[in-house]
Amino acid sequence: MTILEAGAALRSRQISCLELMIRCLDHIGKLNPRLNAFLTVTAESARARAEELDLELASGRDRGPLHGIPIAHKDLISTKGVRTTSGSKLFADYVPNSNAQVVEKLDDAGAVMVGKTGLHELAYGITSDNPHFGTIRNPRNPEHIPGGSSGGSGVAVATGMALMATGTDTGGSIRIPASYCGVVGIKPTYGLVSVSGVQPLGFSLDHIGPLTATVGDARVSLDAMADGAKRKPAPASVREIRVGVPRNYYFTQVAPDVRDAVHNAAKRAEESGARVTPVQVPDIDAINAASLVILLSEAAALYEPYLDRQNEIGQDVRALLYQGSLVPATDYVNAQRLRKVLANEFRALFRTIDCLFTPATPITAPRIGQREVEISGEMLDTRLLTTRFARGFNALGFPALALPCGETPQGMPIGLQMVGRPFEESLLFKLGEALE
Amino acid sequence: MTILEAGAALRSRQISCLELMIRCLDHIGKLNPRLNAFLTVTAESARARAEELDLELASGRDRGPLHGIPIAHKDLISTKGVRTTSGSKLFADYVPNSNAQVVEKLDDAGAVMVGKTGLHELAYGITSDNPHFGTIRNPRNPEHIPGGSSGGSGVAVATGMALMATGTDTGGSIRIPASYCGVVGIKPTYGLVSVSGVQPLGFSLDHIGPLTATVGDARVSLDAMADGAKRKPAPASVREIRVGVPRNYYFTQVAPDVRDAVHNAAKRAEESGARVTPVQVPDIDAINAASLVILLSEAAALYEPYLDRQNEIGQDVRALLYQGSLVPATDYVNAQRLRKVLANEFRALFRTIDCLFTPATPITAPRIGQREVEISGEMLDTRLLTTRFARGFNALGFPALALPCGETPQGMPIGLQMVGRPFEESLLFKLGEALE
Repeated sequence: MTILEAGAALRSRQISCLELMIRCLDHIGKLNPRLNAFLTVTAESARARAEELDLELASGRDRGPLHGIPIAHKDLISTKGVRTTSGSKLFADYVPNSNAQVVEKLDDAGAVMVGKTGLHELAYGITSDNPHFGTIRNPRNPEHIPGGSSGGSGVAVATGMALMATGTDTGGSIRIPASYCGVVGIKPTYGLVSVSGVQPLGFSLDHIGPLTATVGDARVSLDAMADGAKRKPAPASVREIRVGVPRNYYFTQVAPDVRDAVHNAAKRAEESGARVTPVQVPDIDAINAASLVILLSEAAALYEPYLDRQNEIGQDVRALLYQGSLVPATDYVNAQRLRKVLANEFRALFRTIDCLFTPATPITAPRIGQREVEISGEMLDTRLLTTRFARGFNALGFPALALPCGETPQGMPIGLQMVGRPFEESLLFKLGEALE
Repeated sequence: MTILEAGAALRSRQISCLELMIRCLDHIGKLNPRLNAFLTVTAESARARAEELDLELASGRDRGPLHGIPIAHKDLISTKGVRTTSGSKLFADYVPNSNAQVVEKLDDAGAVMVGKTGLHELAYGITSDNPHFGTIRNPRNPEHIPGGSSGGSGVAVATGMALMATGTDTGGSIRIPASYCGVVGIKPTYGLVSVSGVQPLGFSLDHIGPLTATVGDARVSLDAMADGAKRKPAPASVREIRVGVPRNYYFTQVAPDVRDAVHNAAKRAEESGARVTPVQVPDIDAINAASLVILLSEAAALYEPYLDRQNEIGQDVRALLYQGSLVPATDYVNAQRLRKVLANEFRALFRTIDCLFTPATPITAPRIGQREVEISGEMLDTRLLTTRFARGFNALGFPALALPCGETPQGMPIGLQMVGRPFEESLLFKLGEALE
């Protein structure tokens, strides 16, 4: 059941907030032992809050589309009185005494937290294979990763354990699990959703957004999370939207199934009335390189004080922190300069189009532990591939929506990424809803 | 003669633009061989342009306060067809094919360039003791430095070789020569004057502004240089201005003459009607440290490609570039984080005051080559002292006006620094003109 369907059912009294909540808790009870999406389940408070919201609805108070909707928060988003581990041993016992701003906003909108979802340690990786809290598994095939870092959030939404889950995205961490789990995820414009009360990773790259079952659900969720004043309205019709499909290197090093699915999505966009044109895209590998240098440096600056507790940090994250501590400031400064140059190039591209299509990820979810994958006879690194289309848009700050656009013969989901101009999330939702 | 006086004389036909220009060229001819303020004198084009502007005035076209005013440009500001050395051997033969934006704006305002002023090599230092183009000397005492990096600009204005000279300020480079030469200089709000066409040093710290004989002249000069739309109007009366005078460590490590002159300036501000209160100032040494780490890193990133020509770079600048190349990115990132924290603290201070008084420099101009100075029995580094009150406001981006507020018994000028809120230069000018 989607948020929009659940809202209709709640308002026609076909279901109560409590019943809706109990369904999610039942899913968690059945599926979580196998998939490990949740680190903490707040069943008792969730039920109590759902009952309060039923009373509110009965008395005529309606908080809007999220009223009574069961949601989950990624476990690096501070929740008052509820442990917030950041997927790390360093913060395993941390119980915040206040809510993150985004938690407050969703509470006010009537959403009900069912629990906290697991993640890649410190949100610093894409597998969600967590050495401290266990491996999170892909619901389509538990031998595969769900993607990360917001892996638990992707799994929770894909399986109906929650109708929406928050995620954070510093190099793809919302869009990657959306792509690998077959759900929708949006990294909004940089700064649109407050990061206050959220454990940072790279302060000039961190974004917060929702993962949901549908584009419509992402739209109503982001409405509740974001600073609305900054956003631009959607165009009146899909016919006004100019879609760019990269004609250059974007589609090398992409699995054939993924390439075909994204091209099919572009065809469907055209059939819906959008104007689709091939475009030359600025150097994605350059912006990725800049974005990675910036992330390595900012994360290392943040966690440098913890390196005397390196034994409590997993091997992959520790390696990234050490790598970051070796970056010279001149490289960081030059990466920031390159970021500005490429932002100008991407802004120029977005004067000729309104939306860019790419794969969300060039491959589908790898197996747990799989480090390489073969594409057209070449052995490629799964971690680098996974972030290839995602990471650059963290440095650019442009909004990027990931949504399912097919699956492989083996049943693994394929994700489309739609990128827009800053503060034009509504345009992406408009086109995304037309494609669904 | 000030710009405002010259303007009145021009408009009452007491003097022509050409006569005004010839006066400046005469001063240059007499004084420059000894003081070395100018690297290039553009006498011919200056005379021709002055004649054109005389014709314009005669025909009723008046470009405003800078019409026909002889000015000089610091020699890292691109001037079309006129060599622009940046005080460096690396660029000794560089002749730009277009003007910096600020040059265009001043041209349009009717100012006439008499030449290009010398500077500390690459604007990276405070002595203006240039190993490639010679030592620039303080007009009050040629055995003393004029300060830097805009040393030639300070000397040019102090001696009437030009009525205004442009400067750049990355860690005090406008305010320091203003203080040491006894003229007025303003580092405006970060971003107020375009840096387009100006050789950078630290891209997040670089500012451009005028050096002039009086505050009124600085006001009309900045009006012509700046993006006016962003600026806030001055308060109606000096009585509305709340002045803060630091009660904490600001006045340790300050020469007694300077301390007394700044306190006298505060008394005069009070007599003019301003409300003067002692204030606790955030940690100036912390913001200086952050600002320095940022400058070292950004300058090294900029000049890294030139380090294979290190023999063409002076010893002091080379040492700073090497120092910058050894800064880890984590230090740069943490300096940027500290910068944000301190910006919040300074913003909080500026909710209780409108203007902060400090010395522009804690000492008066040292002798050429002097590395240490004794204050209250302590031997202190002249370079560190010189930037101590200036550098932090580059990182903060707040506007800061330096103006003369007395002199030592030996006749060396003492400078006051007035700092305001972003885009409130007009308030500083209002109070500065009242003090003059």
